Amino acid sequence: MNEIQTASGGTARSRLGDEIVSRINQLGMISETPEHLARIFLSPEHRTAADLILSWMRDAGMEAHLDAIGNVCGRYEGDRPGLPCLMLGSHYDTVRDAGKWDGPLGVITAIACVGDLNRRGVRLPFAIEVVGFADEEGVRFASTLLGSRAVAGTFDASVLDARDRDGVSMRDAMVQFGLDPGQISAAARTRRELHAYVELHIEQGPVLEAQDIPVGVVTAIAGATRLAASLSGMAGHAGTVPMALRRDALAGAAECIVAVEQFCKAEGAGLVGTVGVITALPGATNVIPGRASFTLDIRAPTDPHRTRAVAEIMRQIEAIAKHRELSLQIDVTHENRTVPCAPWLKAQVAEAVAAEGYGVFELPSGAGHDGMAMIDIADVAMLFVRCRGGISHNPAEHVELADADGGARVLLRLIENFRPLEAART
Amino acid sequence: MNEIQTASGGTARSRLGDEIVSRINQLGMISETPEHLARIFLSPEHRTAADLILSWMRDAGMEAHLDAIGNVCGRYEGDRPGLPCLMLGSHYDTVRDAGKWDGPLGVITAIACVGDLNRRGVRLPFAIEVVGFADEEGVRFASTLLGSRAVAGTFDASVLDARDRDGVSMRDAMVQFGLDPGQISAAARTRRELHAYVELHIEQGPVLEAQDIPVGVVTAIAGATRLAASLSGMAGHAGTVPMALRRDALAGAAECIVAVEQFCKAEGAGLVGTVGVITALPGATNVIPGRASFTLDIRAPTDPHRTRAVAEIMRQIEAIAKHRELSLQIDVTHENRTVPCAPWLKAQVAEAVAAEGYGVFELPSGAGHDGMAMIDIADVAMLFVRCRGGISHNPAEHVELADADGGARVLLRLIENFRPLEAART
Repeated sequence: MNEIQTASGGTARSRLGDEIVSRINQLGMISETPEHLARIFLSPEHRTAADLILSWMRDAGMEAHLDAIGNVCGRYEGDRPGLPCLMLGSHYDTVRDAGKWDGPLGVITAIACVGDLNRRGVRLPFAIEVVGFADEEGVRFASTLLGSRAVAGTFDASVLDARDRDGVSMRDAMVQFGLDPGQISAAARTRRELHAYVELHIEQGPVLEAQDIPVGVVTAIAGATRLAASLSGMAGHAGTVPMALRRDALAGAAECIVAVEQFCKAEGAGLVGTVGVITALPGATNVIPGRASFTLDIRAPTDPHRTRAVAEIMRQIEAIAKHRELSLQIDVTHENRTVPCAPWLKAQVAEAVAAEGYGVFELPSGAGHDGMAMIDIADVAMLFVRCRGGISHNPAEHVELADADGGARVLLRLIENFRPLEAART
Repeated sequence: MNEIQTASGGTARSRLGDEIVSRINQLGMISETPEHLARIFLSPEHRTAADLILSWMRDAGMEAHLDAIGNVCGRYEGDRPGLPCLMLGSHYDTVRDAGKWDGPLGVITAIACVGDLNRRGVRLPFAIEVVGFADEEGVRFASTLLGSRAVAGTFDASVLDARDRDGVSMRDAMVQFGLDPGQISAAARTRRELHAYVELHIEQGPVLEAQDIPVGVVTAIAGATRLAASLSGMAGHAGTVPMALRRDALAGAAECIVAVEQFCKAEGAGLVGTVGVITALPGATNVIPGRASFTLDIRAPTDPHRTRAVAEIMRQIEAIAKHRELSLQIDVTHENRTVPCAPWLKAQVAEAVAAEGYGVFELPSGAGHDGMAMIDIADVAMLFVRCRGGISHNPAEHVELADADGGARVLLRLIENFRPLEAART
């Protein structure tokens, strides 16, 4: 254990954090437009970023290559060649007008950890692989997790026909990039090759900041149900229809929004419900809205909780519509199952957090991550790093150097102490 | 009184209703586009409609002319020339995609009543004037009541510089129409020339229908206050921000909308509050709205009631914003005083309603009308006629022939029994 304590000692600490922040800034400059960070799948910036990350992987002592869908893949062999790996990773594409940290922090931190092991000549009884997924955000082809789905062998080939906003199909974009759309399956890995998948990512929420703690142990990637609701009543003149004779669709929608918020607050346990989009028609100051539509996004750390919550929320919305004599159309537009973090693996993340002297704080991930795809071929765990104000998908996204360094030390501790499932059980 | 009873007897009744409905249909065909009724101020259709109405006025035994702003004006002398008049009227412009009844019913009914008197050779101890106002809706230059303001001598000359959606100024449109913008003041009348202004109009609301009564006595044209409110909180990821840490601007707006509705319902007494427009930003399914804006339209039959209600509603909105830690911007964007119907004149309208065998039902007008301008030079009263489903500003706007006839009989009875204020007091 001496080596590990040395590895995470004073000198190594600040070196990891400095390197990570420096590389975050380098990668953050590779953007479609200089003033608004955008690094989109299969773009020239994707290529430039891939080459840079591959060079970092090689510097860290890894074999590195671009896979069949554009993921960057590095492998650091264990104490003998060909062992199953602990896979670490995150994504290196961004949304438009993005922050620098969402995705890249997990890739860069994993490489930094491997580089530290390599400098010290440490080889472990398993290989380490680092993957930078080429598309998690789904900005270009409106389909997320393309990189990790290819690795998990669950890539949906119909997405090849999807077109970007310029009308270019994913198939053509791949060819232009220098990839063969017929070879995507070559990116797929098997369960046998992986001990586990662990991802470090910024929290993208304000919980760790509110808890005054730099890292958090993720319990699950929350499933999500999205609904579209539309209420129809009777439009009318804002001056001539008495309150008692109105069938105001927007007033009904407002009651629904308040009910959703109250229900989710009262439930607690990580349930969140959001109305992000609302429209009222005809939309004039002096006309009672005859129609109002809104979206609902409901997430919970377990599927049964989310399913129960969705049913109860729909029941409440139906009751509100009925009471107000509004007709209601409500549809599920999207549904993601919950991906629980594997207890044995999560326990090792928690041990590493504690060993680095931090309090162990568990929280669900409300945002989606590559683990949602990786669960199909590996047990999954995640480590969150605090970000300022919970702000993400925004240029103001920020992680303190000390927190980036803390996250790296926890990840390094996790790697060096990692026991595959068989060993973890004994 | 015998003459009056004869005048409103069987034969006259159906003749008035038939003539009115026939003329409503004729006028309804004069439209910018055949499929969607639109008769806009200073358009070729304005001219065509004016000529038709002037011919009807002359057929009814009136001296008729187009005034300086394009109003049609007819005068039926009393038992000697030059007497002050009882002025009747409404407007003959329309909104776009309008119904046929809103406005024209009042003009056509008044002409039909004068025609009936004329056919019977009845002269009264006062003159009768009928005005068809050229612009009440304000569609073209976004400024309402242009016709009646010119008659009341309160026309705001700055509107001459307003431009329509094609960039044509009102000044140029008047010249093109054949009117002299420098002569608008010639349309102005004085208080001395008028005993009163009485307008018959469709209700544009569902109250008379709900009361199962064809006509209603208007108590006041309700004043209106319009507000624009904007709430700012903190945008965030719909999955990563727990309910307790949110500052959701839309949830705050929804609570305000529910509060406005509850307050107005509980107050009663004709108070109405409407949120017709709402926007939430950034407006994505998976993003907590950081900003929400909405409009508020508040009307009441008395100014003190409206003023109190606006203050209380603003207080509630401020409390909601404070409690949710949302910043609030709220501004009054528009304000109209209440125009009460003159008690002495309203009493005569009620007498005429009762004399025609209808129950006397009083209600405020929530919509604006030309009386809002005419109040500056005359006492005002209004008679409402039931319209189907309360629908107005819509091609489905409809009045039953029997109700059009009933309204005409009441108006004719009012005219023949009319006692100017001096006489009414004795």
